[in-house]
Amino acid sequence: MNTSVNVPVRGPLVAIGGAEDKSHDAHILKRVLDFSGKSAPVVGVITTASAIPKDVFGGYQEGFSALGASKVLDIRVRDRSDAEADTFVAMIQQADVIFISGGDQMRLTNIFGGSKALRAIRARHAEGAVVAGTSAGAACQSTTMIYGGPADDSLRKGAVKMTAGFGFVDGVIIDTHFLERGRFSRLMEVGATNPDHLGVGLGEDAAVLFEGDTIRAFGPGHVILIDSSAITGSNVFDLEDGEAVTVHNVTMHALIDGYGYSLSDRRVLLPHELEANSLEPKNAYS
Amino acid sequence: MNTSVNVPVRGPLVAIGGAEDKSHDAHILKRVLDFSGKSAPVVGVITTASAIPKDVFGGYQEGFSALGASKVLDIRVRDRSDAEADTFVAMIQQADVIFISGGDQMRLTNIFGGSKALRAIRARHAEGAVVAGTSAGAACQSTTMIYGGPADDSLRKGAVKMTAGFGFVDGVIIDTHFLERGRFSRLMEVGATNPDHLGVGLGEDAAVLFEGDTIRAFGPGHVILIDSSAITGSNVFDLEDGEAVTVHNVTMHALIDGYGYSLSDRRVLLPHELEANSLEPKNAYS
Repeated sequence: MNTSVNVPVRGPLVAIGGAEDKSHDAHILKRVLDFSGKSAPVVGVITTASAIPKDVFGGYQEGFSALGASKVLDIRVRDRSDAEADTFVAMIQQADVIFISGGDQMRLTNIFGGSKALRAIRARHAEGAVVAGTSAGAACQSTTMIYGGPADDSLRKGAVKMTAGFGFVDGVIIDTHFLERGRFSRLMEVGATNPDHLGVGLGEDAAVLFEGDTIRAFGPGHVILIDSSAITGSNVFDLEDGEAVTVHNVTMHALIDGYGYSLSDRRVLLPHELEANSLEPKNAYS
Repeated sequence: MNTSVNVPVRGPLVAIGGAEDKSHDAHILKRVLDFSGKSAPVVGVITTASAIPKDVFGGYQEGFSALGASKVLDIRVRDRSDAEADTFVAMIQQADVIFISGGDQMRLTNIFGGSKALRAIRARHAEGAVVAGTSAGAACQSTTMIYGGPADDSLRKGAVKMTAGFGFVDGVIIDTHFLERGRFSRLMEVGATNPDHLGVGLGEDAAVLFEGDTIRAFGPGHVILIDSSAITGSNVFDLEDGEAVTVHNVTMHALIDGYGYSLSDRRVLLPHELEANSLEPKNAYS
């Protein structure tokens, strides 16, 4: 369906599984800066999802500065009027990396949905800027996003709460803190409701780069992919809300740094297959 | 490989995912009694796994009596000399249902391994008695058992601690509290180390009956099956201890009450397929 010429249509998109405050995660944040292709990028930090934006911004300001950012902008959008404000739009327009913090993804979509600020993010992304997010800032990136659901047994009809996300990436549903909070049953329930979308479960200290129809894993944690496209049966449409869901023949993959996945071929890509077609910028972290 | 005549070679074997103290779980314990085929069975409770055997026994004494047991025997084996004692062997010999409580499965194998009491359990099972266990009492039933491993990310070489179990059932590895504690990564790691064994992840308030090469799910919770027999790749043999494991093309099923699985065919059995060949005793709970 793509043309044979591989034209980059926009900048890199990165989703991180959370816990980015841990020191060893600097590896992931360094990669995020490197994807900009600039040695001293301007980073804009969106803390809208968080209830403690000042603290969260302070942490990232220190972290990104230490990693070589020339400027770290505080895009402190707290309500829908902020999301229309020229001052924040101007910050977005000058950012080489737009980083979306964790918190509650419903705050992100509720406050940014349909706003000038969101249009500015899309425009900057189309121009080649990096868009990256962690935890809520990752979950919001898919066209349909998860915003709630118990980890202990989400294989109940209606247990996983979903709504429209920002749609920075199609064909996937992103979940975070995936291994740490045991969220496997959330993506199994989502896969039963619509087997077309690949579940991307990001562990803490794990990240993916979305690049065309390829997903690349990086960071020390695990990326779990839950592919329901070949399921042979499920009772989900027969149930009342809260009843237990069955699902048969879900396919699962556990990836680590260096591995990838082809969304069009629905298969794992090994490190040597990815190296042959590297996206790394010339000044990439090695 | 089996003969065409379906001769029962021993009594029913039941594994329960834990949380059997919850009131709605009486459904599961009632089924366990019904599997004995007796209207007022003698139940022997083994509390060896628990650090508070008196409390645990008291709870089951009350529960099983209320459900119709004629006698509930306190098989309070606390050390290896108890496991050789004639008094406990005699209790096992008169039990129609031998029920193994939760706690630490390592206490079970350490204290019962190679003992007269364990031989008596096997003999009684071969005569047709029900053997059932919950949590640690379920985990111990497989030939190789899990006794430890972090839930947050067990996809690390060596993270899952295993040793020889009682071997009441072959070809499976049993894990419990599976959805509630997010233990999916434990059975994925185990599957990578040996794809031959089916991972049986029992949620709380979920149970399975092992019957020949068929697994039948019952109870209100979920049974998750993790089948690694078709995995196409894993790095596990290349790693040092603690390094992150990849595994590709794991197959997963979520079953509820009424569904089953054929170990020989490696496929889910639907309720109507199981009804055609029911194991229910004539006086079964309905």
